[in-house]
Amino acid sequence: MQETFQNIVIEDVYPELDCGRYPVKREVGDRLEVWADIFKEGHDVVSAVLKHREEGESAWSETQMRLFENDRWNAAFDLPKNTRYEYAIEAWHDEFATWRRDIGKKVEAGQNVSLELTEGRGIVKGAHERSKDKRLASTLTTFEEADYAERLALLRSAEVASLMAANPDRSRSTVTRTLLVTVDRERARYGAWYEMFHRSQGTAPDKSATFADMEKRLPEIEDLGFDVIYLVPIHPIGTTNRKGRNNAVFAGPVDPGSPYGIGSAEGGHKAVHPDLGTLEEFRGFVGATRERGMEVALDFAIQASPDHPYIKEHPEWFRFRPDGTIKFAENPPKKYQDIVNVDWESEDWEGLWREWRDVLLFWVEQGVKIFRVDNPHTKPFAFWEWAIREVQKDHPEVIFLSEAFTRPKVMRNLAKLGFTQSYTYFTWRNHKHEIIEYLTELTKDWPKEYMRPNFFANTHDILPHILQFGGRPAFIMRLVLAATLSPTYGIYNGYELCENTPRGERGTTVYYQDSEVYEYKVWDWNRPGNIKDYVRRVNEIRRENVALQELTNLEFHEAWDDNVLFYGKKTGDNAVFVAANLDPHNAHDSHVRFPLWDLGIAEDEPYIVEELLSGRKMQATGSLFWVRLAPQAPVEIFRMEKASTVNDGMDA
Amino acid sequence: MQETFQNIVIEDVYPELDCGRYPVKREVGDRLEVWADIFKEGHDVVSAVLKHREEGESAWSETQMRLFENDRWNAAFDLPKNTRYEYAIEAWHDEFATWRRDIGKKVEAGQNVSLELTEGRGIVKGAHERSKDKRLASTLTTFEEADYAERLALLRSAEVASLMAANPDRSRSTVTRTLLVTVDRERARYGAWYEMFHRSQGTAPDKSATFADMEKRLPEIEDLGFDVIYLVPIHPIGTTNRKGRNNAVFAGPVDPGSPYGIGSAEGGHKAVHPDLGTLEEFRGFVGATRERGMEVALDFAIQASPDHPYIKEHPEWFRFRPDGTIKFAENPPKKYQDIVNVDWESEDWEGLWREWRDVLLFWVEQGVKIFRVDNPHTKPFAFWEWAIREVQKDHPEVIFLSEAFTRPKVMRNLAKLGFTQSYTYFTWRNHKHEIIEYLTELTKDWPKEYMRPNFFANTHDILPHILQFGGRPAFIMRLVLAATLSPTYGIYNGYELCENTPRGERGTTVYYQDSEVYEYKVWDWNRPGNIKDYVRRVNEIRRENVALQELTNLEFHEAWDDNVLFYGKKTGDNAVFVAANLDPHNAHDSHVRFPLWDLGIAEDEPYIVEELLSGRKMQATGSLFWVRLAPQAPVEIFRMEKASTVNDGMDA
Repeated sequence: MQETFQNIVIEDVYPELDCGRYPVKREVGDRLEVWADIFKEGHDVVSAVLKHREEGESAWSETQMRLFENDRWNAAFDLPKNTRYEYAIEAWHDEFATWRRDIGKKVEAGQNVSLELTEGRGIVKGAHERSKDKRLASTLTTFEEADYAERLALLRSAEVASLMAANPDRSRSTVTRTLLVTVDRERARYGAWYEMFHRSQGTAPDKSATFADMEKRLPEIEDLGFDVIYLVPIHPIGTTNRKGRNNAVFAGPVDPGSPYGIGSAEGGHKAVHPDLGTLEEFRGFVGATRERGMEVALDFAIQASPDHPYIKEHPEWFRFRPDGTIKFAENPPKKYQDIVNVDWESEDWEGLWREWRDVLLFWVEQGVKIFRVDNPHTKPFAFWEWAIREVQKDHPEVIFLSEAFTRPKVMRNLAKLGFTQSYTYFTWRNHKHEIIEYLTELTKDWPKEYMRPNFFANTHDILPHILQFGGRPAFIMRLVLAATLSPTYGIYNGYELCENTPRGERGTTVYYQDSEVYEYKVWDWNRPGNIKDYVRRVNEIRRENVALQELTNLEFHEAWDDNVLFYGKKTGDNAVFVAANLDPHNAHDSHVRFPLWDLGIAEDEPYIVEELLSGRKMQATGSLFWVRLAPQAPVEIFRMEKASTVNDGMDA
Repeated sequence: MQETFQNIVIEDVYPELDCGRYPVKREVGDRLEVWADIFKEGHDVVSAVLKHREEGESAWSETQMRLFENDRWNAAFDLPKNTRYEYAIEAWHDEFATWRRDIGKKVEAGQNVSLELTEGRGIVKGAHERSKDKRLASTLTTFEEADYAERLALLRSAEVASLMAANPDRSRSTVTRTLLVTVDRERARYGAWYEMFHRSQGTAPDKSATFADMEKRLPEIEDLGFDVIYLVPIHPIGTTNRKGRNNAVFAGPVDPGSPYGIGSAEGGHKAVHPDLGTLEEFRGFVGATRERGMEVALDFAIQASPDHPYIKEHPEWFRFRPDGTIKFAENPPKKYQDIVNVDWESEDWEGLWREWRDVLLFWVEQGVKIFRVDNPHTKPFAFWEWAIREVQKDHPEVIFLSEAFTRPKVMRNLAKLGFTQSYTYFTWRNHKHEIIEYLTELTKDWPKEYMRPNFFANTHDILPHILQFGGRPAFIMRLVLAATLSPTYGIYNGYELCENTPRGERGTTVYYQDSEVYEYKVWDWNRPGNIKDYVRRVNEIRRENVALQELTNLEFHEAWDDNVLFYGKKTGDNAVFVAANLDPHNAHDSHVRFPLWDLGIAEDEPYIVEELLSGRKMQATGSLFWVRLAPQAPVEIFRMEKASTVNDGMDA
């Protein structure tokens, strides 16, 4: 038999991810709303508090919970810092509040309550014995000297009620398990990423660009409105079995090799490729980026070329075959002889884990606060959970982006165990129904609590078919979808130039022809047909409209044409709507429906619509609105205002 | 840093109630299907087993789990006994299966796999070292003496695969928490209840009936097709502040008092009211009921009259007021001076708990295997969880019905913590939309895992307004709804007589006029207008159609009239449909739609419909079907058969 019993049930706590196994995620400045079903048998009054503290603190802060309806309670607390907070709920039977409610009913019914007053005094006395609160002693003294009416007034007073509420009997309270919320900085939720392939940022076609060349591009990238510059690995590259242009099996004598073939005699994951410059120059590039209000995200790819120094220094971290040769990466029957994977089953797995953590911390020391993690889904989940925590416990500002294009549950698990952001299926979602279905999953279902999408319109490895076939209209349309469906999005350099030549026949591959992954390259960053004006304007619109800086406020609205996607985001007074023609080959006209009922605009009330890409303003009435989206202008972005709130010279 | 790491994730286990806090429920003969998301990083082969055993056994049985799709796995195990079973999932990386899959791909691609064979031998050797399985030793010997082709054939053979699967390396497997399923006997799910008010089963208007009188009614109740006879408390009744007829404040000299005023000088909860007979005669009644294939459910009401022996024997279990008087039950400003509640906060709460458990065990010893628990929601949840377990650990056949007409989450919690069955809101759900909504919650949502409804059409305390106003058509309609929506249902005696006189103006109360709760009464069990033929036929139909013996197979179907409710249940080949006119005052004609697509009947294929209340048979074609439901025959129950499967002389 148990030693005591709790008589309050607390269940269905929100947010609580997988029974508290993983933290949920929020951002600095948010407020965490916590909900739970809380009840007791019978009809006694229940009190409940939301307890919360920064992880590691010993004292809890407490916020009174309120009954919403149907035994569901809530409270909230602020998340001002980039750290982790703990929270829990505690509830107990409030004997005095129960007494006070009941005596009120009896007094109203005209009953004599002398005995009840004595009972009430007993409850106060008990509270005083527990708490030694002097104000309670004084209440008891007052009670002794008072007559019936005075005693009644005293014990029913708001003062005594609040005194008693401050001294509850929590000896048999129910407390939930302690839950965690990871509070990341704002960039975790909101930012525009530019994937810069370092070696192609210069002007000489036969050699690598350098950190200095890259720095020269910063004014333009800043002008385009990006927040993050993502670099593929910057480390020395192996020569054994190095791949040639267009992923040829053998490299030519001048081919630089894939930057993912990490490690050579010149160093491994903590070294900088000499062609790019020195470590000091890298730090200079990081600083120059920061001075322009941007920051650098670095690739973190756990794999090695056969020339990586680790193989000699730590052969115990690799797997050797019965004939003494090292085991190359493979996806049978394919073999990747330019890459070896570490052996996660190594006897010295702890040393291996520590080394990778130290690599991360090394780059954090160099000023890198964002890592784009290559293929995390092929490394143990437990490693990531540990390593991310190891870094964030001293550097909570560090952001990890999971590049896991894999099965949905694996992607989601990486997000649960700690990745700050995730690559997504957006890159392959083209049709209206599949975009709506996928975005509804990301913004309305459980993933919204822990998985932050980063919508890449392309990457150095992915030239989606829609861009291959759809050309410039598709580039504009996919840019706007990425940048407005998700608060974090990215493009890989060349996107702004509408580069869409695949390696092979269109529609049969997602790789780029003559990709700088395998060769030197020089881009004309102003070549005809580029969409830089669009990129610049879209990023400007994102900065000017807070609604676009959030994820879960996304709502899809009616559009009568199945090629027209219509959706909106609203935060406070800021309401932005996007109409996108998903068909890059044909114009589509459609009615769309503004949710006037959400905007406080009556169906017969005039309102102002500003199309933000063109700057044109219109006055309209009624929720139905007509859009014509031609391939040359496939997207419109509307900001809505009540006519009466604008003072722009137009008749309201 | 952890000492080792698991590399398999098992999540979203089904069924798992509140993170494993409570067992789910099933019945003897069921099979428990268990599902989970199971995955590992990368592309290795995973193996998983469902472990299961009777609670208390030390050894697990294991059933191989299968991948269904999208990383979701399943397996099932049988539940042959009335007990509790434990289950858990264990999963591990299957190194040999991974090796076997990969070598297959390499061989198909024509690669030499000598090294792979040596690696495969190493895996077999490791398994032998762990398991000492002689068959593995023999495999290794064979391997040594074989050439390349023979080695390949050997290690790729089904024999070695199954040998290796039988000797897995589970040293780093992931195991879920252990979950529980309570397996009750069939009566927990399926049964027709007849609430018999003991004192009114006789023929003398001025005195109580006896167990002997009650026994005389058994043939009739058996003939009507009931399975359970529920008795209100049979204990001595207090005289202090006893209530009179129609709940009058004072009893007259001959008024027997409410049977819920339990306890007098003649005994308490372990005694039998002398007016009814002796304890031995009660056992006789229980036995006579069992001989007719029925069983007795006894009321268990934790409350006492002011004359209950406990008050003298155990004053520590009650609360006394500052003036020394006992605290009566109250719901301020109302006072119930004929009832005292026990003090659950008593210093001797453990003694109190044990006593109530012993009361239950006492009646179990007398042959009672079903308890209808009065107002459990006003007693501590923790007590019920403990007490039900205390009884069921030695008497798993005991069924507890929760009479908690209270807030939804409290009702559901009582079911979670152990009540076998629950009274429901059915008694107050009259309109089509609310019946569909409520039944969908009960049959499709989480409650189906732990809450078994018992649909009472009336009780001794509840004469619903629909019966007060709707008369005989309403009685027939509500009978059929209760008996076919839920596999367990009940009526209170008098229902079959369409007794519907309220205490006061119709529609202002749910109490019966001149209720036997407060007075002696004699019924004419064959009085004109009774619906006993309906009751008998409905119970017969329930027994003849297994589909009606289940809950979660309920599906609502289209009926064009909002007063017509149309639904069906299908189990195996047995498919039964009910069309009910919810309006007792008017006839309603409507199209209803049989789900032919679920029955394997084509839209143009003839089928046979048998109306089970009248016995008439029709041949029909097409899913649309016309029903006319007049007040005098407000319900039709159809059994569907494919025309080709029936051999009844009708043309198919």
